[in-house]
Amino acid sequence: MDNKYQKLIDWRREFHKCAETGWLEFETTIKIIKYLRYFGYEVKYGKEIHGERMGLPDMDIIRKHRETIKEDADFDISEILDGYTGAVAILDTHKEGPVIAMRFDIDANAIEESKDEDHRPNREGFASRNTNAMHACGHDGHIALGLAVAEELVKEKHHLSGKFILIFQPAEEGVRGAKSIVESGMLKDVDYLISGHIGLGAEKNEVVCGTTGFLATSKLDIYFEGKPAHAGANPEAGKNALLAACSCALNLHTLTQFGSGMSRLNVGVLKAGTARNIVPHKAYMEIETRGENEDVNSLLLQKVHYIIEGSAKSFDVKFKIVESGGAPAYNNCDKNFIDELIQVLTKKNIKVTTGKSLGASEDITHMMNEVEKNRGKSVYLMFGTKLAAPHHHNRFDFDESVLSLAYDAFLEIIRSLL
Amino acid sequence: MDNKYQKLIDWRREFHKCAETGWLEFETTIKIIKYLRYFGYEVKYGKEIHGERMGLPDMDIIRKHRETIKEDADFDISEILDGYTGAVAILDTHKEGPVIAMRFDIDANAIEESKDEDHRPNREGFASRNTNAMHACGHDGHIALGLAVAEELVKEKHHLSGKFILIFQPAEEGVRGAKSIVESGMLKDVDYLISGHIGLGAEKNEVVCGTTGFLATSKLDIYFEGKPAHAGANPEAGKNALLAACSCALNLHTLTQFGSGMSRLNVGVLKAGTARNIVPHKAYMEIETRGENEDVNSLLLQKVHYIIEGSAKSFDVKFKIVESGGAPAYNNCDKNFIDELIQVLTKKNIKVTTGKSLGASEDITHMMNEVEKNRGKSVYLMFGTKLAAPHHHNRFDFDESVLSLAYDAFLEIIRSLL
Amino acid sequence: MDNKYQKLIDWRREFHKCAETGWLEFETTIKIIKYLRYFGYEVKYGKEIHGERMGLPDMDIIRKHRETIKEDADFDISEILDGYTGAVAILDTHKEGPVIAMRFDIDANAIEESKDEDHRPNREGFASRNTNAMHACGHDGHIALGLAVAEELVKEKHHLSGKFILIFQPAEEGVRGAKSIVESGMLKDVDYLISGHIGLGAEKNEVVCGTTGFLATSKLDIYFEGKPAHAGANPEAGKNALLAACSCALNLHTLTQFGSGMSRLNVGVLKAGTARNIVPHKAYMEIETRGENEDVNSLLLQKVHYIIEGSAKSFDVKFKIVESGGAPAYNNCDKNFIDELIQVLTKKNIKVTTGKSLGASEDITHMMNEVEKNRGKSVYLMFGTKLAAPHHHNRFDFDESVLSLAYDAFLEIIRSLL
Amino acid sequence: MDNKYQKLIDWRREFHKCAETGWLEFETTIKIIKYLRYFGYEVKYGKEIHGERMGLPDMDIIRKHRETIKEDADFDISEILDGYTGAVAILDTHKEGPVIAMRFDIDANAIEESKDEDHRPNREGFASRNTNAMHACGHDGHIALGLAVAEELVKEKHHLSGKFILIFQPAEEGVRGAKSIVESGMLKDVDYLISGHIGLGAEKNEVVCGTTGFLATSKLDIYFEGKPAHAGANPEAGKNALLAACSCALNLHTLTQFGSGMSRLNVGVLKAGTARNIVPHKAYMEIETRGENEDVNSLLLQKVHYIIEGSAKSFDVKFKIVESGGAPAYNNCDKNFIDELIQVLTKKNIKVTTGKSLGASEDITHMMNEVEKNRGKSVYLMFGTKLAAPHHHNRFDFDESVLSLAYDAFLEIIRSLL
Repeated sequence: MDNKYQKLIDWRREFHKCAETGWLEFETTIKIIKYLRYFGYEVKYGKEIHGERMGLPDMDIIRKHRETIKEDADFDISEILDGYTGAVAILDTHKEGPVIAMRFDIDANAIEESKDEDHRPNREGFASRNTNAMHACGHDGHIALGLAVAEELVKEKHHLSGKFILIFQPAEEGVRGAKSIVESGMLKDVDYLISGHIGLGAEKNEVVCGTTGFLATSKLDIYFEGKPAHAGANPEAGKNALLAACSCALNLHTLTQFGSGMSRLNVGVLKAGTARNIVPHKAYMEIETRGENEDVNSLLLQKVHYIIEGSAKSFDVKFKIVESGGAPAYNNCDKNFIDELIQVLTKKNIKVTTGKSLGASEDITHMMNEVEKNRGKSVYLMFGTKLAAPHHHNRFDFDESVLSLAYDAFLEIIRSLL
Repeated sequence: MDNKYQKLIDWRREFHKCAETGWLEFETTIKIIKYLRYFGYEVKYGKEIHGERMGLPDMDIIRKHRETIKEDADFDISEILDGYTGAVAILDTHKEGPVIAMRFDIDANAIEESKDEDHRPNREGFASRNTNAMHACGHDGHIALGLAVAEELVKEKHHLSGKFILIFQPAEEGVRGAKSIVESGMLKDVDYLISGHIGLGAEKNEVVCGTTGFLATSKLDIYFEGKPAHAGANPEAGKNALLAACSCALNLHTLTQFGSGMSRLNVGVLKAGTARNIVPHKAYMEIETRGENEDVNSLLLQKVHYIIEGSAKSFDVKFKIVESGGAPAYNNCDKNFIDELIQVLTKKNIKVTTGKSLGASEDITHMMNEVEKNRGKSVYLMFGTKLAAPHHHNRFDFDESVLSLAYDAFLEIIRSLL
Repeated sequence: MDNKYQKLIDWRREFHKCAETGWLEFETTIKIIKYLRYFGYEVKYGKEIHGERMGLPDMDIIRKHRETIKEDADFDISEILDGYTGAVAILDTHKEGPVIAMRFDIDANAIEESKDEDHRPNREGFASRNTNAMHACGHDGHIALGLAVAEELVKEKHHLSGKFILIFQPAEEGVRGAKSIVESGMLKDVDYLISGHIGLGAEKNEVVCGTTGFLATSKLDIYFEGKPAHAGANPEAGKNALLAACSCALNLHTLTQFGSGMSRLNVGVLKAGTARNIVPHKAYMEIETRGENEDVNSLLLQKVHYIIEGSAKSFDVKFKIVESGGAPAYNNCDKNFIDELIQVLTKKNIKVTTGKSLGASEDITHMMNEVEKNRGKSVYLMFGTKLAAPHHHNRFDFDESVLSLAYDAFLEIIRSLL
Repeated sequence: MDNKYQKLIDWRREFHKCAETGWLEFETTIKIIKYLRYFGYEVKYGKEIHGERMGLPDMDIIRKHRETIKEDADFDISEILDGYTGAVAILDTHKEGPVIAMRFDIDANAIEESKDEDHRPNREGFASRNTNAMHACGHDGHIALGLAVAEELVKEKHHLSGKFILIFQPAEEGVRGAKSIVESGMLKDVDYLISGHIGLGAEKNEVVCGTTGFLATSKLDIYFEGKPAHAGANPEAGKNALLAACSCALNLHTLTQFGSGMSRLNVGVLKAGTARNIVPHKAYMEIETRGENEDVNSLLLQKVHYIIEGSAKSFDVKFKIVESGGAPAYNNCDKNFIDELIQVLTKKNIKVTTGKSLGASEDITHMMNEVEKNRGKSVYLMFGTKLAAPHHHNRFDFDESVLSLAYDAFLEIIRSLL
């Protein structure tokens, strides 16, 4: 296990260095596939593991990032370099048994990692090599965890039954990637789905089992397009997209009073206009909604659509709404199933709590809902550890001993399900 | 003429006393008809002189005012008491000659006349007997002028040729009545239309001949209707008409930049909501637009409609737009015709100027456009006098000698056209 | 008890008939005082029981209502007729013992009672005689309850100890009256405060003991005053209070997202402008805020003040904020005290539940906080009954047997505290 | 003259190639100085010809552009490379006579020149070598004109009297540079100021003499700064600069109704926020105002300031207003002086018209007002020519024969003033 722990740390740091943001996990994906193939897995990747990808970066960003990739491979990486990132490793024991899926998210944040010398990744030489990309949420640890579990399952293969599906999911940040994987059909026959996250609301050395309180959320990009005109000479000929956007932003922020549950709305970014003396004909907004439950978020979304359409109508401009991310709520877990898992972990002297609410969004809920819709069961774990700074902070780092904790929890749960 | 002058003053004061606002000129109309019939005119009134009436008061206001009317008549006044006010006197000489129409507006303002003792109508006992109704624009003088001209034409009948149509028009305030009269077809064969106004931009004792610069204008009442809900318990169930109206009012006020001519927009009244703790489901707005020319006002109106519709859409409420008034622009007069009239007046030692712009709206433009469309000619005069206070002020009053000036000008012009 | 029950019903119906809204409870107060004096109480009323009265109606409304009052009295009622309504009955046993205060609210709602024949108050002849005033919340029952308890206490006087303060509070609707009573100092030495409400969240025949979840709330009237100007001729000379109010209303509604607890804001009424063609120089808004706790409501209020001030600044208009109502939050009760009371009631075979949240506002919280600040204890009860329609509905009515239940609960609790 | 015409064309094309935008006319300025020194002028440049520079680009833009400059010089160019661009050439005849100033603006537009093959600058090889900088307004022609006039004046030196000041002004676009030059004191003793523009409202081959109708204008950059917060977790901790900007933009657009003259306002650019899930704490707006006269623009500006301050207050954010450009109105010219000049030009068979209104803004008005304030006289000419596309279009080009016309007009006027 010492050896295993060292491997977990090495992998975590290897992937911390090549941090890549959602749908751009080119090097990350290629490296993961190489490991998985080396372990002996059948690996699916590229278009075959995807449906529709939300929140894909512009083609020229993809192209630019592609040019930086030097990673060589003896398999076809062209689809990966088109943004079909992530990989799914399958181990079929060909013995009667359950289908167990696991999910590890692999993308980094669009954050410039701190250059502070006392930030450990700098001190110990594993900081991100990429500008404006940093594993500030712990997904590097998730990759390491996934690889270690994958390697161990192969080793134990002859003692195992059923089928294992290890999903290395791209683009969790912005809640974009899970839906695409679900749409590939990959999760149709899954009996159990295990996933989890380092840090978050768990206490150090503690595993939270059966997390709920995932908020429903939607991420929308909104475009208004009007008509330019000289603001001095003939302003009446213009169709003002800036005013449409401003009115829209203000009106959207009036929508968040719900008796049926907490809701949130944020217009996070607004860009409009081209020049001081031109009636602005283009505007762009990035917004998000959240709801304590599915009903709140969908009613909120309906109201959002009315306001966008109405604002466009008001200023006689065109509009376009692009869904660039989103995840459903997840509030109830199968109490019996969770209780069984708690017993399994407790027996192995792992400190477990339950009943914790995430109070945020995670696109794993797409997968959990898919599995449960088909009568499968799912669990989301939180692995407590000491954080150097909060998630998404440019000095985020974690106590790597949590990787062992997560590794043990995953394997004990898997073994108990067979 | 001394006798004539006294009559002008008497009539003016008689009608000043019974001031009635637009579409409620019940007593006023009945009295006018009585005089006209007494002079010997064939008088048309009621439905036969009207098309669609804009900005009609609510039925219960009409009913309430009807109850105050004690004026007796030996003709059927039922349509008058339904708000078909005004009268048209016709004198047909049955001799070859032009059809000459004249227009005198008869309605008062919704203003409470000053109770100040030094306000002459109080001092000399001819102040308005009606609450919230006052001749503060001089239309009482116009009625007197019309009656005096009518009486004189009958006297001169045997020296005259052609046909005379004297229109006593209701509801000029709010630019509502002229369109209804035009729609009756009354002005179809008119060769000449003469009208005018006391005061305005004319200097004392001066007649302005050939006024232009009449702004196009529209008066709209806007209704939003949403859905009430308890603001604490389930605000999301409400559809907020107050916010729709507020967003609408702000957005409407962004519309007035036109390279092609001056424009104006005013949201003059906004009333919304029923109680502090109820999501407001009703809102009402009174707005007006103006344009230096027809194109400006119609493009502005189109933009206004977009914003009303868009605001309703935004907050998922219903809307209704009621046109409660309006008049077209009038910017060009027939220079040759005006020059002839100037000569006529000048010869009679009447001081005349021309080229003055009204810079406001008057619904006579409906009639002027109608007449000119059919190749007739029209003139709008302003009769200069000393005003005690500006038009629409609760201490408005005028030097009554202007009535003689106007009377002379009218008759000289009429005689010159035969 | 049969006799007592009949009295409860008679009183409830007597006061239902003379329903009067907040600060106008003239007849109601005089009648209550007469009963209390008849029972033998020392009764305080008028200015001596009041501090500053929030949300007082305009003086001419007070004057108008005063003229309708025919109730005769052998005590000075002039202060009552000035709006110092309500009464406080004091029974001092002059024996060592606790000071026990009770509160009964006495005002009606500004609702026109249903004229439906099948609405019981109509059928049985006790509907409100006053227009736009109806006991649609059950305060008529509270008065009856207070009188019955008062009468009984006098009867039991020789078996009692300590001091009793029975507060008949005006203007609970709009959360206005309690603060004024508290400011009189009346509650300074109170050891126990008992109060409650018919209906609300309680099941039929059940008493809820120890209600919490009272929302903090503030009711504000906002006035903007700018400068009128002719909207066509010189709009730039105007200072637009309507636009200030519209911008204010929209911006206020963007304020309700709080991570620290639920919040609410409603602009319930907005009236602005005088005429279509005048730049509107006056605007008036009625708003309310709510917060799950005191911190949420006070931070929200601070933000509300910024927006009101900023909106006035933006359009260069003056503003005035009048606090017309308000009540603090109340979230925690003294668990031990409540448990004792539950035992008391249970022993007497009264069905009791606890742990219910009001989820609304009640100005009793002013009193509860005052008493608890001085180390006293307080309890708020809900008395379950069948309602004919929801509170504040024009067909509201309740099963009068609840009056017995409330009466018993009050007396048992009082007896247990001695 | 053929030779002169060829030179005019050569110079125009040389400067068209090195198009540089306002305050970045590094190469342009150095080249102009070299020519002027070569002709024999005393040339002032750098800080000595400047006061405060409005609308200076960010320091790193200046630095970046500086790095592209290869132009060598035997004089100190360090201040020029700090953005103190432009040059003033002085020719003192040391003979009694008037001080005659001329102004030639030298900056290009921030426009990417068309790559179309049939765009003449491409076809004939003199298109702009710089990205996003193009002489799309004809200032390249103005430089050529200035140089040609400068060369000729030296040649004629011994026949001339008085003093000549030739101002090659930077940053006319965005109306930024003239004020800085005026503040240097350069124009204090000027008797005559001559300037003009190619194209605009003049007919081909015609000179417009005595242009008026220059609109007053102000260019403002507005910054709002609030406080970021997580939009899901604790939105109430944020101070929303985006909503402040949106409310500001909408409210600003309600300001343009003036009875006292045309006004304009445009919020041309708005950028706010950093990320979808962060309460936006920064916002930036570029706006401009215009007024038919000085009073309109200054009253408008005052109202603009109120709204900016009020919007900041409303959302509790800080604000900063940076004046990045501006020019006063200029509506009246010295009719006698203009008439004299018209005679001068007409005598030389130059087709002249007068009474044309610019209907736009030009910062020459700073200079004209300065000269006239000190009892000097000024004239603004327009030189008619055929344009390939409107001013500020990426295919703008002009018939270069206009350069001769302008050259002749300048010299005839100068000679007439001595």
